[in-house]
Amino acid sequence: MTKYTVTFLPDNKTVDIDSNITLLEAAGKAGVIINSLCGGDGLCGECRLQVKKGKAMADKNAISFFSKDEIEHGYVLACRTKVEDNLVVNIPLKSRVEQEKILMEGTAFAYGEPEKLVLHRSSHEPVFSLDPIVKKVYLELPVPTLEDNISDIDRITRELHKVSNYDKFETSLPCLQNLTEKLRSHHWKVTVTFARRNGVGRILQIEGGDTSDKHYGLAVDVGTTTVVVQLINLKTGKIIGVKGSHNLQVRYGEDVVSRMIFACIRGSLAPVHQAVIANINNLAHALAEENHVSLQDITAIVAAGNTIMSHFLLNMTPCSIRLEPYVPTTTVYPQIFAREVGIAINPEGILEVSPSIASYVGGDIVAGVLACGMADKPEIRCLIDIGTNGEIVIGNNEWLVCCSASAGPAFEGGGARNGMRATGGAIEKIEINDGQVSYQTIGKIKPRGICGSGLIDLIYELVRNNLIEQHGKFNESVKTNRLIKADGELRYILAYPDETETGQAISISESEIANLIKSKGAVFAAIKSLVDYVGLNFAQLETIYVAGGFGSSLNIPKAIGIGLIPDIDTKRIQFIGNSSLTGARMSLTSIPAFENSLKIARRMTNIELSNYAPFMNEFIAALFLPHTDAGLFPSVKYLR
Amino acid sequence: MTKYTVTFLPDNKTVDIDSNITLLEAAGKAGVIINSLCGGDGLCGECRLQVKKGKAMADKNAISFFSKDEIEHGYVLACRTKVEDNLVVNIPLKSRVEQEKILMEGTAFAYGEPEKLVLHRSSHEPVFSLDPIVKKVYLELPVPTLEDNISDIDRITRELHKVSNYDKFETSLPCLQNLTEKLRSHHWKVTVTFARRNGVGRILQIEGGDTSDKHYGLAVDVGTTTVVVQLINLKTGKIIGVKGSHNLQVRYGEDVVSRMIFACIRGSLAPVHQAVIANINNLAHALAEENHVSLQDITAIVAAGNTIMSHFLLNMTPCSIRLEPYVPTTTVYPQIFAREVGIAINPEGILEVSPSIASYVGGDIVAGVLACGMADKPEIRCLIDIGTNGEIVIGNNEWLVCCSASAGPAFEGGGARNGMRATGGAIEKIEINDGQVSYQTIGKIKPRGICGSGLIDLIYELVRNNLIEQHGKFNESVKTNRLIKADGELRYILAYPDETETGQAISISESEIANLIKSKGAVFAAIKSLVDYVGLNFAQLETIYVAGGFGSSLNIPKAIGIGLIPDIDTKRIQFIGNSSLTGARMSLTSIPAFENSLKIARRMTNIELSNYAPFMNEFIAALFLPHTDAGLFPSVKYLR
Repeated sequence: MTKYTVTFLPDNKTVDIDSNITLLEAAGKAGVIINSLCGGDGLCGECRLQVKKGKAMADKNAISFFSKDEIEHGYVLACRTKVEDNLVVNIPLKSRVEQEKILMEGTAFAYGEPEKLVLHRSSHEPVFSLDPIVKKVYLELPVPTLEDNISDIDRITRELHKVSNYDKFETSLPCLQNLTEKLRSHHWKVTVTFARRNGVGRILQIEGGDTSDKHYGLAVDVGTTTVVVQLINLKTGKIIGVKGSHNLQVRYGEDVVSRMIFACIRGSLAPVHQAVIANINNLAHALAEENHVSLQDITAIVAAGNTIMSHFLLNMTPCSIRLEPYVPTTTVYPQIFAREVGIAINPEGILEVSPSIASYVGGDIVAGVLACGMADKPEIRCLIDIGTNGEIVIGNNEWLVCCSASAGPAFEGGGARNGMRATGGAIEKIEINDGQVSYQTIGKIKPRGICGSGLIDLIYELVRNNLIEQHGKFNESVKTNRLIKADGELRYILAYPDETETGQAISISESEIANLIKSKGAVFAAIKSLVDYVGLNFAQLETIYVAGGFGSSLNIPKAIGIGLIPDIDTKRIQFIGNSSLTGARMSLTSIPAFENSLKIARRMTNIELSNYAPFMNEFIAALFLPHTDAGLFPSVKYLR
Repeated sequence: MTKYTVTFLPDNKTVDIDSNITLLEAAGKAGVIINSLCGGDGLCGECRLQVKKGKAMADKNAISFFSKDEIEHGYVLACRTKVEDNLVVNIPLKSRVEQEKILMEGTAFAYGEPEKLVLHRSSHEPVFSLDPIVKKVYLELPVPTLEDNISDIDRITRELHKVSNYDKFETSLPCLQNLTEKLRSHHWKVTVTFARRNGVGRILQIEGGDTSDKHYGLAVDVGTTTVVVQLINLKTGKIIGVKGSHNLQVRYGEDVVSRMIFACIRGSLAPVHQAVIANINNLAHALAEENHVSLQDITAIVAAGNTIMSHFLLNMTPCSIRLEPYVPTTTVYPQIFAREVGIAINPEGILEVSPSIASYVGGDIVAGVLACGMADKPEIRCLIDIGTNGEIVIGNNEWLVCCSASAGPAFEGGGARNGMRATGGAIEKIEINDGQVSYQTIGKIKPRGICGSGLIDLIYELVRNNLIEQHGKFNESVKTNRLIKADGELRYILAYPDETETGQAISISESEIANLIKSKGAVFAAIKSLVDYVGLNFAQLETIYVAGGFGSSLNIPKAIGIGLIPDIDTKRIQFIGNSSLTGARMSLTSIPAFENSLKIARRMTNIELSNYAPFMNEFIAALFLPHTDAGLFPSVKYLR
């Protein structure tokens, strides 16, 4: 087999490969991450590369993704281009997966004094006592005598009974195997680390001396796009550090469906599993090093993610989730040793995964319900978590119903030529007044594209300025030189080539607007269907919590203006940021919170929208700005 | 370092070794097992070898174990002889650890019809339902639909709830990881194997199709001398096969104390642990092959052994058991995967170990109490299990007390020049009438030595014939040509050189008789102390059960005659054979029985005799044949 060398610019990473593999696969081997929404199907046009040296032919079907100029300048789709020469290729800005603005909570819990430890962040969050899922207790044991010669482990559990409320303890075999020397060489002073399983205290580790100060855990949000890890001091409940990174699974597809297709059909499960494990290990390692914490002293992890991500995390086949009737392997995950999936904390450390409800309503939403506290009070509230999937929960302390709708990648910057994720250079805020466009980018640098919140602003401003009609078509009667025809379609120019970092215009087309309207329509239809299903109207929702990847810079009135979010008093709408991570941390630091999450998962009724007839009507009615029923959006000002 | 070759006869096994190791160590490397009571301390004189070629010097301290003739013929102690030449050595019959008559139950449980399955063997055994600790259930699951799309594992447990009485199930991660394909490729027909832990059903294995017929377990008696394994059909409860072999740990010492010294001081724990694992694997493999059972279909083991053997089995340091205040690591052993200790059954198969009471009252005695049913009824009964340790239990369904006394190796054939274990060629029955000696050997072959039951008979016959006094000294006034002086001591000749296989006389000396009296004295003193402790007398014991390594051929009246067993009506004394193995099998095949063993262990009060003042007085009073208080043995006929 012929061998070729491929060098990827601008990082100058080189890899030697056999012929007959694609540039996207070569990038994977080189450790270079290229955007790929569709998982290598040639459908999304995200993995564009520019061939600088060597011969490479763009696949015929891929040509439609490029302008004539781009094709002349050597642009190809990485997934559709076989390597048949030694190549030097450049990864354009848009195709790079770079350090993004990752949604992380900024604020730590405020803990009270040890006597009355409570978790408390803001008004909406429920209060739980500090009672971590793994505990570490220092014991000074009485020395055995002939009158008191119970076994070594009974001597330990006799003391543990005094300081904990377990009726029974069980001990792992490794803990027992060298216990005798440990107790005696440390003069009967030991520190015991124990978790809880099935109501029994599970002794994980017995260390000589007093190590109870070194007691750490990780809260992990396993997002489809981003993985965020918090390092928590389990003695105090305080957040020590937080780090996030791109989900390395992106090389197997940008959305969960593409990754499932890779895991189940095109490739295999193992690399997808290993990618997210690498994420967690990298982040945990960096956090530990930065904060002078030993990975050995981390003995507990709670991870929250959607059902598919949870399956990937645990290396469980997700292959029946994708197809009707959408069945996951499990919704309640077993307590395992973190080492069983290759996470490099203390080998006796445990991993708990936030329970899911159904295939498309995951542990992230359960964690979100936990975090906002809506399941604890009689007032009826609503949680909307918008990502590639929009997940909706309505309920109170007596009932909870939820549903999920595929919003598509539009709000995460996919499906549009200039769409991008909320990272440096993304246009996040837009205003158009009297034909004048003003915008703001993340990082206050030259724009590279438009992220989700920017797209919402853009749609809102276009319709407010009468540049598009309420059904999303351009109003060609309005005079503006920003509306041009390119590659056979009308496009509205948001930023001219001289304004942008790429030197190419940033614009939006009619079909891209149509995609966004479909996305917002799906989310709103899901909310409306669920509200109708439970026999309520929007006015009866005491609070709407908005969470998710674009929530941090979302303009709520504009989101209402395009009909994404119900039109209620904006004072009753709260951002709760990364509620999945908050919920994971709550479960990590408080057994009552973790138990609450299991109760939430059991209590919540999932409405399968694909099986719920009114949803399609609601969806069609929502394909309008803001909605075909203007009465639903009384506050929207541009309505004529 | 110089290299030498040592060949061991008669098996002709050769090993190349470095200099500076002993012949005993060389034998270990060659896989040749040589008797060693003291674990290589040069104290027991059991590891005698005859050097046939090459030069080897007997250690000066070892000379006392040999006659002049033997030294001239090249006899050495393997443990005291460094290899400093190429050698050919012969292992004399007495030093060989050969296939012995291993105590195994002959009878199977008689099971009733499936509707009312009971375990029943004989009148004394309690009745338990067939309810094995690991179950295998075939399920035909309904195919999921949009209306019924619960997770795959919930679909399984929903059916399991209908056929079992667990409120909750937990599933191992490996079971979940490939569950999706398994269910679908087998058209929703699967067989689930599950155990019980902490009241929760623990799913161990999910197989495609109906494999519920292939459902096996092992009951294991981990004896100090012998390891016995029974293969059980867990669907029917029937015994399929049974095999026993020498405990391979014998190379590290014949008794538990020597093995602890090897594990903790002289050598290390690992080889002692691995030896008993090799025993179990060899026996399981042989049983499986012979009965056309796959090791993969064995998913449960219950093992019973003394506390030290249980520690060795689980690779737990036994080092504090040996020294005052005699503390074990644990008395209740965790349910583990058999693979965790290297036992090669199904990798998801579990191992349970019968719970112990204290360092010197082990799971074998708990299994014995379970097997004889004494803990279930109001009548007060006594269990005497005699091995290297004598273990005594008295009690009923309301109370149980136990104790343990070091009987020494006398009844297992140790500590006497012609003592041997109950194997082929051992004299097991003796009568002396009018100076005429008659005996019977195991296997009806030429005698090689005397085993425990033979020694009891011998002592009884010697005192009955007035050949020894009641304090154990030879009565030199009785005329017999069998009483001779050899190597400075009086010896009674039981078999002349021409009668024996070795061509050397089989005899007993005064000091060896003194040892036996000490052993029987310790056992009886323990029984008497315990009976006194609970404020009873022997007449109040409804039944005495006798179990242990020499029980199969024990002459009860003679055992009473020497004062080993209390003098009650022999109709009230029952042999129950290997009660440890019976109890292990009961626990394997019946959860109620296993739970009963845990209750027995919790209920039983251990009296530490080394800490109990009256014991020493009882011991001294028992150093007489049958006892200094003749009133305790009214039926003994030779009493004058």
